Amino acid sequence: MTRESANAPFLRNAWYVGAWPEELASGLFGRTIMNEPIAFFRDAGGQVNAVEDRCCHRGAALTDGKVIETGLQCGYHGLVFNGKGKCVEIPGQDAIPPMAQIKYYPVVERQGFIWIWMGDPARADESQIIDWKFHDDQKVYPHRKAVLPIKANYLMMIDNLMDLTHLGYVHSKTIGGNPLSHVSAKMDVTRTEHGCKLVRWMLDALPPPTYLKGVPFAGKVDRWQEFEYVLPGSVLQWSGALDVGKGAQQNRDQHGVHLRLYHAITPETENSSHYLFSVGASFGQDDPAVIETIFNDTYPTFIEDVEIMNNQQARIDLDPGKPLINIKADNALHHARRAFNAAYEAEQQAMRQAAE
Amino acid sequence: MTRESANAPFLRNAWYVGAWPEELASGLFGRTIMNEPIAFFRDAGGQVNAVEDRCCHRGAALTDGKVIETGLQCGYHGLVFNGKGKCVEIPGQDAIPPMAQIKYYPVVERQGFIWIWMGDPARADESQIIDWKFHDDQKVYPHRKAVLPIKANYLMMIDNLMDLTHLGYVHSKTIGGNPLSHVSAKMDVTRTEHGCKLVRWMLDALPPPTYLKGVPFAGKVDRWQEFEYVLPGSVLQWSGALDVGKGAQQNRDQHGVHLRLYHAITPETENSSHYLFSVGASFGQDDPAVIETIFNDTYPTFIEDVEIMNNQQARIDLDPGKPLINIKADNALHHARRAFNAAYEAEQQAMRQAAE
Amino acid sequence: MTRESANAPFLRNAWYVGAWPEELASGLFGRTIMNEPIAFFRDAGGQVNAVEDRCCHRGAALTDGKVIETGLQCGYHGLVFNGKGKCVEIPGQDAIPPMAQIKYYPVVERQGFIWIWMGDPARADESQIIDWKFHDDQKVYPHRKAVLPIKANYLMMIDNLMDLTHLGYVHSKTIGGNPLSHVSAKMDVTRTEHGCKLVRWMLDALPPPTYLKGVPFAGKVDRWQEFEYVLPGSVLQWSGALDVGKGAQQNRDQHGVHLRLYHAITPETENSSHYLFSVGASFGQDDPAVIETIFNDTYPTFIEDVEIMNNQQARIDLDPGKPLINIKADNALHHARRAFNAAYEAEQQAMRQAAE
Repeated sequence: MTRESANAPFLRNAWYVGAWPEELASGLFGRTIMNEPIAFFRDAGGQVNAVEDRCCHRGAALTDGKVIETGLQCGYHGLVFNGKGKCVEIPGQDAIPPMAQIKYYPVVERQGFIWIWMGDPARADESQIIDWKFHDDQKVYPHRKAVLPIKANYLMMIDNLMDLTHLGYVHSKTIGGNPLSHVSAKMDVTRTEHGCKLVRWMLDALPPPTYLKGVPFAGKVDRWQEFEYVLPGSVLQWSGALDVGKGAQQNRDQHGVHLRLYHAITPETENSSHYLFSVGASFGQDDPAVIETIFNDTYPTFIEDVEIMNNQQARIDLDPGKPLINIKADNALHHARRAFNAAYEAEQQAMRQAAE
Repeated sequence: MTRESANAPFLRNAWYVGAWPEELASGLFGRTIMNEPIAFFRDAGGQVNAVEDRCCHRGAALTDGKVIETGLQCGYHGLVFNGKGKCVEIPGQDAIPPMAQIKYYPVVERQGFIWIWMGDPARADESQIIDWKFHDDQKVYPHRKAVLPIKANYLMMIDNLMDLTHLGYVHSKTIGGNPLSHVSAKMDVTRTEHGCKLVRWMLDALPPPTYLKGVPFAGKVDRWQEFEYVLPGSVLQWSGALDVGKGAQQNRDQHGVHLRLYHAITPETENSSHYLFSVGASFGQDDPAVIETIFNDTYPTFIEDVEIMNNQQARIDLDPGKPLINIKADNALHHARRAFNAAYEAEQQAMRQAAE
Repeated sequence: MTRESANAPFLRNAWYVGAWPEELASGLFGRTIMNEPIAFFRDAGGQVNAVEDRCCHRGAALTDGKVIETGLQCGYHGLVFNGKGKCVEIPGQDAIPPMAQIKYYPVVERQGFIWIWMGDPARADESQIIDWKFHDDQKVYPHRKAVLPIKANYLMMIDNLMDLTHLGYVHSKTIGGNPLSHVSAKMDVTRTEHGCKLVRWMLDALPPPTYLKGVPFAGKVDRWQEFEYVLPGSVLQWSGALDVGKGAQQNRDQHGVHLRLYHAITPETENSSHYLFSVGASFGQDDPAVIETIFNDTYPTFIEDVEIMNNQQARIDLDPGKPLINIKADNALHHARRAFNAAYEAEQQAMRQAAE
């Protein structure tokens, strides 16, 4: 892995999770994505919009302003911008010059996500947005969300999620258990249209303590862990267990323990990111303490990852060109990196062709 | 407005407010002006001096030293410098080499200001110092002073002061009132020899609550606000009110409510400054609570400005060359910018001629 | 003194005090030396080792790992490195590729120091390590150790230690006394094989209060202070007193008050360092309060030095090329600088020859 793959570049023509709707509770929220400060705001009609967080008049931060009937109003001199970044009001003058325009970003609010398109608005296609129906119903899939800032390139966190070897080391005090069990467990990795997927089965195993909090399994279970990387910044996790004998390997999609985690990593700068994740469980729905417990077990685990990665990035930044070496356990993460690199190359080539 | 005008360069041959005498209470005080760390000290004779805050021997900060009978003594090895930056004592040796000399800055302490000349000492002309007689007598004009650090170029704060549009937005929760009243109020802007001046009248208006704290007006008043920009870093504010019928527009200078604010903005670096201001009032002098109240009403208002400007500068620094657009309400601030630019060009031209 | 001498470069082929063994109490300790993050660890056999604090697999910090039987294990994916930086274990695979190797540094633990060699390992010669036998026996020489981070180039602290003029100014409130007594005291400076040495005698003097805490001197004493600079980062201090008449100048090494201080300055970056010092006393050994008192008197004195130097470095960094001037009192420190410069030039020349 060279410098290029350690600090992955930005893929522009793609949807990212820009924010949780909960972060926009006040109606106005700022986040830097790909070095661009962005103001998210919910307009009077209830729609979420995203515009450049910089007034075209004097450069003030629009997140210092407020949302009014006609749009987002700058807190310095009162200029108002609509969701397309067009200035619709300048106090003290009737004519609005055409260059009174700031950058805007296509936004879609769906299934409890605020998606943002960081590339050419003309190419934003909502049908490419990942379907995460598990957010649609809190009764079937109670879930909780959180955000962690990471001082590392966004693909470093993808590396982390597409790698189960680290569980035994990073998480030895929490969920890790015996390190070598993770290294030696059988794992299937397959390429998918938009990334890759790893699946690991633990057959005829004891149910872990967390599962037992929600479901009184009779005896041993067949467990699985599935992590699907979807370009550029998402990992979809499906973990679960079924009683032995219920044919889990043939059909996991039956009543049992199901955990559905959404991991979204959104680049802030070349070497910092926001990690937005949601933890959902389709069992123990009658008892709010179950999802609470699962979330509270999970959160400190992710903080362990973040601490490792922050130091890792600091080391890499000291000498970005210094080579790294591959090991066999990297299999799934290299699939993910290759999928990313192919997409990035395709985007670069398309840009070069467009420029000709 | 281009990058050049957002981040104004330094005008060298000019007087700046270097410090309040109150900041020099201990006799020694350090402040960075135009990227140069400066040690202000009051010598044994009571004179204020300003020298480079760096010993010529080993580079120690002279503000780590102390003032003694013969000058400012370095706290590391005891070298002593007089107010002209000349080394007058080197412990352990009799001869003082001629290169034992640090930079000095002409200083004038007058009317409660410590003025500093940042250019060629030979050109420092005390007669150019602004006359602010209102500081001379605390009985007639009780006043209070303060300093706020700003993370913005010094002319950004001049822009702010020479603009009344922002009152309705930045100060909507404090002194702003109805935003559009500020935008639509009639305002006269005139160029002056050393800058420009804006005057705004509100005739037959209700006196504002702050004024009523000191003076029991009978009924409505004629109010005015005058802001005079004086190159390079001062704005002189005269606000006040007279009872309707007393002919305020013909002669404001009669008994009534008068507020005299001095706003000095001194560049620290290209994108940081110190904002030194004094708030004086020529009414309610018998009651110390009056000036206290006025100061306490004013201070949080200036902090609102500073917060907006700090974020504005951060946005501009992300992409300094990105264009900004002008609006009609910018009228007075553009007069100020043009006055500054003319003075700066004249200085540059004089330097080029001197170099030929 | 030019920029080169203010911010001295790194001398590579030399032993430095990397850490106190007490800092390695947990078995694993990280410190950056010469811009290189280093992991010190005590292996299962009790030996101290030092390796690059960066895993060759994915760049994780090895100080986030732990020490196991076979070496230092990365906390991310479990790779294990021995004290020579060789990877000896990769979870999940049998073959270990030869490039699975990180940098290592020769280390010697001796006399209460952990010495590290920052240059070519083949040239590391343990016989060059300074002998500081006073650490060997806490009963004869009780001592205490500490570490102070300094925001200054390491030779700035050598300058400070090889200069007694500053005592009267920097330490005027602690140990300084009359400034001019330090300037005018007779001082001998001699070059040594590996640096230089200054010795100062105060004959027939009153014993200082600190000495009286441990030894009830009958009357006046002959006092001395000796500071020996040993390349590149050590100053060996021997201060003491003997009753007048005991022939101190002929033979100091007899029963009396002896203070033995070891000052080690280890470069972290070009303009930051770690100052590791130990304070030992060969008197009052029966009363632990004596060494405690001496240490507690000394520590705040060193903090005074550090504060001066941090500001000094900040001034120098503003304009590193700006000239500094020499004064007579610099005599000893210039000897030290010349010794350093000669060693540095010799090292550079050897490197050039090796490259030919």
